[in-house]
Amino acid sequence: MKKSLGAKTILYPTPVLVVGTYDAQNRPNVMTAAWGGICCSSPPCIAVALRKVTYTYGNIVHQEGFTINIPAEQHVRFADYFGLVSGKKIDKFAATGLTPVKSSLINAPYIQEFPFILECNLIQKMEIGLHTLLIGEILDIKAEAGALDHKGQLDIEKVKPFLYAPEANKYYGMGAFLGNAFSIGQDVKKKP
Amino acid sequence: MKKSLGAKTILYPTPVLVVGTYDAQNRPNVMTAAWGGICCSSPPCIAVALRKVTYTYGNIVHQEGFTINIPAEQHVRFADYFGLVSGKKIDKFAATGLTPVKSSLINAPYIQEFPFILECNLIQKMEIGLHTLLIGEILDIKAEAGALDHKGQLDIEKVKPFLYAPEANKYYGMGAFLGNAFSIGQDVKKKP
Repeated sequence: MKKSLGAKTILYPTPVLVVGTYDAQNRPNVMTAAWGGICCSSPPCIAVALRKVTYTYGNIVHQEGFTINIPAEQHVRFADYFGLVSGKKIDKFAATGLTPVKSSLINAPYIQEFPFILECNLIQKMEIGLHTLLIGEILDIKAEAGALDHKGQLDIEKVKPFLYAPEANKYYGMGAFLGNAFSIGQDVKKKP
Repeated sequence: MKKSLGAKTILYPTPVLVVGTYDAQNRPNVMTAAWGGICCSSPPCIAVALRKVTYTYGNIVHQEGFTINIPAEQHVRFADYFGLVSGKKIDKFAATGLTPVKSSLINAPYIQEFPFILECNLIQKMEIGLHTLLIGEILDIKAEAGALDHKGQLDIEKVKPFLYAPEANKYYGMGAFLGNAFSIGQDVKKKP
């Protein structure tokens, strides 16, 4: 019998989304968000939930575009830092030494050093409560050569992403390969 | 310089969301969705993106509630299977031997054997494209005793969740502890 834990926001795995934007003066900023995920296959879209008080929220609404930068294990300190301070007061690129690169598709910067990034055009907003859900159409994914396999596809084992555990507030790496999707369930399917 | 991969739906980590519903005849069903995530802290909400043709979509709209069941590593075959077949034709609980338990809060079943589950009340819908985003307010989280730490909180190391890698269509376990969130970035913050 399951024990009730109350109404909480716990999901495993939760992603670590580093959101890149320009402010009204075209200064690059990044913040880390955990609430979000892919939300549509066609058009390819991602949803990210932000509080309106964040600097990033205002930037996205003003510029109508943002990037999602996926950090590798080695970037965990930077990703955590990006969630600790506001770009209203601090130049987070200067503080970390990371390099902002202007997207050619939208008016937003991405992080050169991160393994791959999504360039997103704001297409919808949805008021939920404390957070507003921003829907971005993914116009392109751009990746470092070292994050790709021999066929030129993203290789999660080379990216080495990490996950966030809400409530406990911990980061974990990725583990062992467990099986192929749309495949390892086939033997259950074959049962009488 | 990053290489362009085109407009795709790749995010690491992507969750494995097993959505539990009753159909109009109160028959329990589960399907697996990868597009979704937490979308608001207050009220606590989760977004899950479904195609309207799925049996689950109709069930949620009819019942106005659903569960999100988080599988452990040991359930990876079941979770994959739940995404391979439709509940229109098949009783997936009977096929797997898993046990549906009726939620006391909403008209939806959860999976007794999975480590923890979210009970959700449908509060909003958003048309995006091929997928519709369904927003559920999380009314409660319920967990197995074996998934909790000594303080009674969910322990990701005991849950042993796994993640999905889109495009490559692979499942991976969780890896090593990397650091505490809102903490390991502090040393970056202290830099001049």
